[in-house]
Parts: sequence; C-alpha cells; structure tokens
Amino acid sequence: MFYINEHFTDLPGAYLFAEVARRVQTWRNAHPGAEIVSLGIGDVTRPLTPAVISALHEAATDMGQADTFHGYGPEQGYAFLREAIAAHDYAPRGVRIAADEIFISDGAKCDIGNFQELFAQGSVIAVTDPVYPVYVDANAMAGNAGTWNGTQWSDIVYLPCTAENHFVPDFPSRAPDVIYLCYPNNPTGTVLDKAALRAWVEYARRHGSLILYDGAYEAYISDDAIPHSIYEVDGAREVAVEFRSFSKTAGFTGLRCAYAVVPKELCGNTAQGGRVPLNPLWARRQTTKYNGCPYLVQKAAAAIYTPQGQSETRALVREYMDNARAMRESLASMGLAVTGGIHAPYLWVRAPGGMTSWEFFQVLLEKAQVVCTPGVGFGPNGEGYVRFTAFGAAEKTTHALKRIALVL
Amino acid sequence: MFYINEHFTDLPGAYLFAEVARRVQTWRNAHPGAEIVSLGIGDVTRPLTPAVISALHEAATDMGQADTFHGYGPEQGYAFLREAIAAHDYAPRGVRIAADEIFISDGAKCDIGNFQELFAQGSVIAVTDPVYPVYVDANAMAGNAGTWNGTQWSDIVYLPCTAENHFVPDFPSRAPDVIYLCYPNNPTGTVLDKAALRAWVEYARRHGSLILYDGAYEAYISDDAIPHSIYEVDGAREVAVEFRSFSKTAGFTGLRCAYAVVPKELCGNTAQGGRVPLNPLWARRQTTKYNGCPYLVQKAAAAIYTPQGQSETRALVREYMDNARAMRESLASMGLAVTGGIHAPYLWVRAPGGMTSWEFFQVLLEKAQVVCTPGVGFGPNGEGYVRFTAFGAAEKTTHALKRIALVL
Repeated sequence: MFYINEHFTDLPGAYLFAEVARRVQTWRNAHPGAEIVSLGIGDVTRPLTPAVISALHEAATDMGQADTFHGYGPEQGYAFLREAIAAHDYAPRGVRIAADEIFISDGAKCDIGNFQELFAQGSVIAVTDPVYPVYVDANAMAGNAGTWNGTQWSDIVYLPCTAENHFVPDFPSRAPDVIYLCYPNNPTGTVLDKAALRAWVEYARRHGSLILYDGAYEAYISDDAIPHSIYEVDGAREVAVEFRSFSKTAGFTGLRCAYAVVPKELCGNTAQGGRVPLNPLWARRQTTKYNGCPYLVQKAAAAIYTPQGQSETRALVREYMDNARAMRESLASMGLAVTGGIHAPYLWVRAPGGMTSWEFFQVLLEKAQVVCTPGVGFGPNGEGYVRFTAFGAAEKTTHALKRIALVL
Repeated sequence: MFYINEHFTDLPGAYLFAEVARRVQTWRNAHPGAEIVSLGIGDVTRPLTPAVISALHEAATDMGQADTFHGYGPEQGYAFLREAIAAHDYAPRGVRIAADEIFISDGAKCDIGNFQELFAQGSVIAVTDPVYPVYVDANAMAGNAGTWNGTQWSDIVYLPCTAENHFVPDFPSRAPDVIYLCYPNNPTGTVLDKAALRAWVEYARRHGSLILYDGAYEAYISDDAIPHSIYEVDGAREVAVEFRSFSKTAGFTGLRCAYAVVPKELCGNTAQGGRVPLNPLWARRQTTKYNGCPYLVQKAAAAIYTPQGQSETRALVREYMDNARAMRESLASMGLAVTGGIHAPYLWVRAPGGMTSWEFFQVLLEKAQVVCTPGVGFGPNGEGYVRFTAFGAAEKTTHALKRIALVL
C-alpha cells in the first residue's frame, strides 16, 4: 500500500511566487487590457548578449553534425566550463578552486534544494528571517523543519534581520548543524563585509556547522572590498559550499546554468565519529540523479568568460544597477524606507502607514498596476515590507515608479 | 555539528557506468592509440535531426532579442510542448492525458530519482532483477533499501528476470508499496504485451501499490499490438506514473528533455487513512526544487512533433534498429544466447563458457576492444550476462561484431 511523504502536506500554502502569479492573474482577469508592470519575481528582461547567442548557434550547429555531436556529457559538467569558472570567478580574487571542486548544474535553486539530501535526518537548520523560501521548503519536505505553527517551523532556527540590526543577522543562541547564508541578500539586498563573513566562518568552524553560501547575486557587488566568495575568508574551505548562478550574472534565467563549489577539505560527521568528505558524496548524488547541463548551454556559459562576453555581461549588470539606483532614489524621495539596491538587484521597502506586506502588495497592484513581492512571504520578519527587483526594462521601471508616486 | 546522511556511505562501489568508464580509461592509458568501440553505455551517436537543429537556431535567435526573449518559464514546462505531447504521444493510441498532467523536465533519470521524495519513509520498493540501477540507488540514498549484503539490499523486493521466465517478472509474494517497471526493458530488451501489463495494473490496484513506469524506449516498439504507454490499460491512471524521454526517441541525450505523467486520479495514502493526489505534490516538488527545462530545448522537443520532425525521428530510430537486427543475427550466429533487440535498442547476451559478466567484459575489452555493460551491474540475476546497445554508428558496430567473432 503506497503511503506519501506527509511532510509535503505540512507545507503551508503555495510557493510564494506561484501565489503572487495567481493573484496577478485574478486581477488581470477582472481588468482585461490593464498594463501591469512586474517588479516582483527576480526575472531578468534583457536578452542574452551577442557572445552568448553566437555560442548557442555554434553549439547548435555542432549538435547537427555527427563528428561534433555531443551525447551524454559528464554529470559534473565539461572541463572547459569548470576551468573557465576557476580561472575567472575565483583566481582573480586570490581564491584557489580546482575544476573538480566545481559541479555544473541547471540552477542554483535545484542545487541548494537537492543538497539537503546529504544531511542527516533531523539536522537543525538555520536561516535568516526574511529568507529565500527554497532553503526552508526543501528542508520541510524532508522532515527537517518540524511542525508549522502558522508563522514559523518549530525546528528551524531563525536569524532575524530587521531594521534594528541593519538586516545583518546575529549568531543564534543554539548552534545549528547547517546555516544558509545568501549575500548579496535576497530579499533585503544587504551584503556582508569581510569581517562579518569571517565571523560566520569562524562560528561554523567553532561549532562544526556547515554553511551553504548562496552567491547568486555576486555580480552586483559594486565595491571591491566586499567579498564575492565565501572562500575569500581563510578557513572557509573546511566549512562552506558555495552556489553560483548565471541567471542574474548573464541573464540565463531561461537558459538554465549554475554551479556548486564543494571543496575537497569539506567534511561531514558520522554518528560513529568518522569524517566523510562531501565532494564525492555530491558527485554520487549528481551522477545518480542528474544527467548534466546541456552541452550547448555550457558552451553559452563559457562564452561569458571571453573578453567580449565579460564586457557584455558587465554592461548588462550595469543596466540593471542603473534601474536599482533610480528606484532607490525615487522610492526614498516618496518618503519610503529603502534598503538594498546598491550591491544587489533587490530593494527592500517598508510598507507605509503600518500596512502589512500583502496589503501594500494589493494597493500597488490595484492602484498602480505594479507587482512587487510581499516581504512576509520570505518569513515573519518580512511582514510590513515588500521586495522590488531592478530587473525590469528601464522605461517600464520609470513608468512604474511614477505610478507608485501618484498612489502614495 | 553537521552530520551526513549515512545512507550515502552504504552505497556499494561507484555508479555502474562510472565504473565501466574507469576500467576503459585504465585500459586506454595502457594502450594509447587503440581504437575502442563502445557498445556499452546507452548513448546515441547520430546527430540531432534538421527539424530539431532549425528549432534550436530559431529559439537561440529569440533569446537574443528583447521582444522574444524568454526568462523563467513555467516549472512544469511550456503549454506548447505539453499539448504537443498529449496530442501526439497519447491521443493517437486512444489515451487521454491532459496537458496539466504532463511535467516537462531535463531527464527521465532525474524524474525517476527525484520522485522518490514523494514516498513515505520506509516504503517497500520492488524492482526487477536485473534493473536500471537508478531506481535502487535513489531509494538506498533515502534509506528505503535497508542494508547491503554484498549482493542485494535487505529491504528491496527483487523480481527475478531470468531465461527461465523469459525475463518477464512474476508477482512478488509480499506486496510492495512501489513497483518500478521499465518496458521496453533496460537492460534485457524485453517487452510486456497488453495482457501482462494489464496483470500488473490489476495487481497494483488490488494491493494499493504505486507503479513507476519507465517508458524511455517506447519509440523502439515495432509491433503495434504492444502497449507504448501503461495508460493503454484501463485503470492505470489510478495507480501509475509514466516517465518518458526524448533522449532515445530523438537523440536528446546531450540536449536533455523528458517528461513525467502524473494523472489527476492518482492518489497516495496517509497514515490517518486519507487519500492525497500526487499531481499537486509533484507540482510542489518541481516548483520548489526545479526551475524548468530551457526554453530553447523545449522548442527543439516540440519540433519533433512536426511532420518533418516525425519522419526524421522515425528514420533515426530505424537506423538504430537496423543495428539491433544486425547485432542480434550476428551474435546468435556466433552461438550466443541473445534476448532483446527487436522492440528495444538493447541486447542481453549470455556470457559464453560460464564466464562472469565482468570476465566477459574484460575479454571483450582486451581482445576485441569492444565495450559492453556487465549484466551483474544491473543486479545479481544479471550475473553471467552483458548488455550491448544498438546506438553505435552502423559501420563501427559491424566492425565490433567482426572483432567479437574473431575472439569467440
């Protein structure tokens, strides 16, 4: 008799962005023809750059000829891409990562979600609050979150990020087994300076915790002194896995390419007191349950490391950050409290007049036809905030800001 | 303190194909310049067809222009592809599958592996023996396999497929919660006729079991009377999930596209006696931990449903099946006992002279420079067999057969 994993039925409501999409669709159905501007989901809007498009065409042509056709690739990804990543994303910042510590995949969301499979049952998880929902949901599905009380999970350690602590979490009173950190942060747009990041690495070393470091937005850091990688901190190789993505760096949200770094020194404990390296465990997981990122997508990703690709990608990021600056200034001039938007494509905005997140969401949708993401969807400490993204087209973003100004 | 999921450390040796690759590499290093022909891993060798390549180029061009750029797609896949699948893969065989029962993904291996997340902890799993290793390994990693005794897992129900039962499994004496069936079968190349498939559906209905039906090779069925889908049997919608792939149908092993069908009637039980539909559970899993198959890959997959695509794809399958026929005849003429190769791209061959699978593998590698897959890697009842695939180039396959004939 087949029984389901009932942890799935413990999950509250729908996945945040699905719920936002549903509400927008409901409103759209009632108001056909309305022009809605989405500053909600973190999806890019600029097309892929010429270097990437050329690489896609070349690789597509390869796939149509017997002598250049590529079937199954290595599950960890092609060496050409892993070597380019090591050479361009790490070496220039003084970080030594070997190609076989890099695992190419189809998304950082997938990697971060699936990495949970390597945890012992009952692992205690710490997340910031607010937080990107996937960290929590993936653990809840696996039974590591406990019970849902309508606001929080009983067994998750939440690290509040509020205006009082400038959205930078304090250490928990109880040492967790796994700590999820995301910097530049989604949703608050904050970053950790090197001293703060070092403090987390030291904390993890002291307590034997594993840090899962989500660096999906590192390309948006505009100050060279801020670490792009957790491995810029000495000792991080023994305690941290890092996740990166081409989605926001190069507009790959619809092309799907990302990678995880699992250093060879990084170990987990066994109940008998043994130490097991995580790199071969993740390799086993990926070879068994994943078939590798498409050849032509990996060729496209490699193209962003060419001189042309680098310059195009920087220009792409700059366009979005121009939006972010304009949004920051405009929203602040309306009297709103705004965080982020300097080293991150996200702006974290306090709802005015004591409104809840969903109330402000509805006001913006109905009065300004602007979609944001309700902060409470990222955790209880997100209540009273909304998240805006800078990924819209410049003109539409300006238009949206004008509409918001009229409403407030 | 971080503890690992120790079920990973219970897994014996490396994943089968990784071990084959390692042995081949070892031999290649010792014999540089040797021309090795692989009839081992089930990877296609013919390039993608012109209809698919055109679609890739068109979609790549779309991705380079702001007005046709595609960012995040729906995690379940684009409607254009889901509707084409329903209309072409199911409707013509009298099977009604709705587009929202189809979930597009990047591989059947991933889907089948990940689907295990929906099972209650401790679910009893039945697999054929021999079997595609992923079904077992995915469950072992999640702790549903028990302990490994060097040959078998203590908690897995094995269904022997031997020459005596013509490689068609009998029902188990103990009713399992989940039954994995793969037809046309990997590795034995056998198929189930409609009566045999109906018997399994009735068995599952009687015992409340879930069938995970792997139909990755359905395009190779050459007799219209043999079911292509488990849903051709009445009542299967209440008990079965079906997995399909474009890998072998259209040569997509390096492009990555597949789909799972989760009918709306299909439910699992809860400990309290409730019934929960699996379709929304799988949707929740995919929206949380997966980001959808790349837009351009889905466009390429849709191209195989055009008249040009259909005719090219049929020709592609025919080429491989011409190989299969030649291999079958040639190997039989050498006095070998051969199964499969009629409705499947796989041939299941008894090692001569009482050799073990790995012994015959080494003989073929060292004497004939031909790579096969050792049958014992698929389970204890695969001992004494090897698997050949028909996916090689015709000329190389003929060459390999000549070399084998000289050795035997």
